[in-house]
Amino acid sequence: MIDTPYLLFLGDAPDKLAAKVAQGIRDWRPEYALGQFRMEGCKADMGLTDMTLAEARAAGCKTLVIGVANRGGVISQSWKKVLIAALEEGFDLASGLHNLLRNEPDLAAVAKATGRKLHDVRVPSVAYPIANGVKRTGKRMLAVGTDCSIGKMYTALCIDKEMRARGAKATFRATGQTGILITGDGVPLDAVVADFMAGSVEWLTPDNDPDHWDLIEGQGSLFHVSYSGVTMALVHGGQPDALILCHEPGREHMRGLPDYQLPSLEALRDMALALARVANPACVVVGCAINTQKMTDDAALAYCAEIEAQMGLPTVDPFRHGAARLVDAMLAI
Amino acid sequence: MIDTPYLLFLGDAPDKLAAKVAQGIRDWRPEYALGQFRMEGCKADMGLTDMTLAEARAAGCKTLVIGVANRGGVISQSWKKVLIAALEEGFDLASGLHNLLRNEPDLAAVAKATGRKLHDVRVPSVAYPIANGVKRTGKRMLAVGTDCSIGKMYTALCIDKEMRARGAKATFRATGQTGILITGDGVPLDAVVADFMAGSVEWLTPDNDPDHWDLIEGQGSLFHVSYSGVTMALVHGGQPDALILCHEPGREHMRGLPDYQLPSLEALRDMALALARVANPACVVVGCAINTQKMTDDAALAYCAEIEAQMGLPTVDPFRHGAARLVDAMLAI
Repeated sequence: MIDTPYLLFLGDAPDKLAAKVAQGIRDWRPEYALGQFRMEGCKADMGLTDMTLAEARAAGCKTLVIGVANRGGVISQSWKKVLIAALEEGFDLASGLHNLLRNEPDLAAVAKATGRKLHDVRVPSVAYPIANGVKRTGKRMLAVGTDCSIGKMYTALCIDKEMRARGAKATFRATGQTGILITGDGVPLDAVVADFMAGSVEWLTPDNDPDHWDLIEGQGSLFHVSYSGVTMALVHGGQPDALILCHEPGREHMRGLPDYQLPSLEALRDMALALARVANPACVVVGCAINTQKMTDDAALAYCAEIEAQMGLPTVDPFRHGAARLVDAMLAI
Repeated sequence: MIDTPYLLFLGDAPDKLAAKVAQGIRDWRPEYALGQFRMEGCKADMGLTDMTLAEARAAGCKTLVIGVANRGGVISQSWKKVLIAALEEGFDLASGLHNLLRNEPDLAAVAKATGRKLHDVRVPSVAYPIANGVKRTGKRMLAVGTDCSIGKMYTALCIDKEMRARGAKATFRATGQTGILITGDGVPLDAVVADFMAGSVEWLTPDNDPDHWDLIEGQGSLFHVSYSGVTMALVHGGQPDALILCHEPGREHMRGLPDYQLPSLEALRDMALALARVANPACVVVGCAINTQKMTDDAALAYCAEIEAQMGLPTVDPFRHGAARLVDAMLAI
């Protein structure tokens, strides 16, 4: 569990895209994002107050979150200077970088000396159990996709936002490093050892109030041969009551797999539902979430209407149109 | 890769069942099993020549394989004495125990001093790639089951034996620790990090001659919620041309999951085939392998005949009846 609120470290980000972790925190947990720290030459701006480390501590920030990708897979000396100063100032550090903070001898030494924590969210920090499949109380929604990186996290976060706005009981359950940094907690599922994948998802989504919803961030796709095993662990470990089908029109092939076509939404529905019902016979598909980021407003609405007619399910771009209809469908179960 | 041939260490096995790894090697790779080493009080006997370490070295043994489970999860001092003497005598050690040999300071020190290898086959020793899904040359068979521990490894080994007897090109591909110790090579799939599972299976079953068959040891079950993600990685990473459905009649529930019933063979066929065709559209189900270990001869034959009529597929207990009909069906593809 990462202490909040955060100071977002944007470093020397060459552009806005490089700071997408910071953007995610800014968009989805603005209450955690008290300020930003930018180095000389930084081309990203979250529109937050620029703070020195001392100002951020005075404002109550507890963790410096690395919200930017590093260049060339190296944590540079110019970053190090800031990170070490932050530890000395009393911040914990949190990172989703491939290079682990803990593997940098200088950072590790200063963290030890100052008693601060280094959170490398790509690495599991818990000894997860093997899944036992026992039925748990409370409700669970899982977003499944026709492909990877198609909008599953955003769909779950949009639903989380809508449910919070309604005062409904809901918890976004992060299963990837961006989601973990956004919420401060979760399971880095792609880094879990095979035998414990489904168990880590059970651990992440425990017994809860009967009217509480866990909104589980999906990973991969049942139809993506590189990562389908990870998706399967979510379907069986998550015991979803509700599935939402995520899709982005216009992709020419599965991400990273030029020889593989995306499945139809019908194929995804049938496969995901059949598998989900092994763990929860009551599971239903409640709607479709379409990623229309590359479409005009009119085209987005028309496409969603078309899919709605085709699938007979509420269909929206939850980021563009809001998740109200998806939440309505979930609560109607 | 573990050097062969082996001296099988039976230790102080309390009974034959405790030595099932040794039994597997004895049954499936008798040419590797030159002798056995038994300590005082050992109740297991593989029917091999009892050898001292010196005799075994003289006979050409290169690796002492721990063919027995340890009691209480501890490598005892009485075992240690033999293992250290073996290293000093020039043996490598190989083990599938949960306690790793490398984590025992005395064994690690002696191995280092003598230049011998400690093979802990539960732990991956390779940096596996992420699966790329590219179609590979050669043929692949995968055994899939209605449950865990239902006979998938034995089915693949029986087919391997039959194909070797016919002079056909085939390689058993081990994916679990017993299989790895039997053949000296493989991937400990349940210990691989999630993102690399399917890639490790691709790595294990590379391009090969068009008429060569990889006989892939299955793991778990698509219907077993604890391990289904591992099975999924085999189905997609393995790109099987042929699936064989494995089943044992009479189980009251899924192994370790009292609330879960076994799926029908039809459900397994439909699910496994639909998923396998994502990676290989030409995949077919060629037969059923029934584990009839608890049945009389007559009952076993009658049950196989019943399943054969029901499924319209060649159906045998390959351990009891031989795998000839399954191999015929594979070669007829």
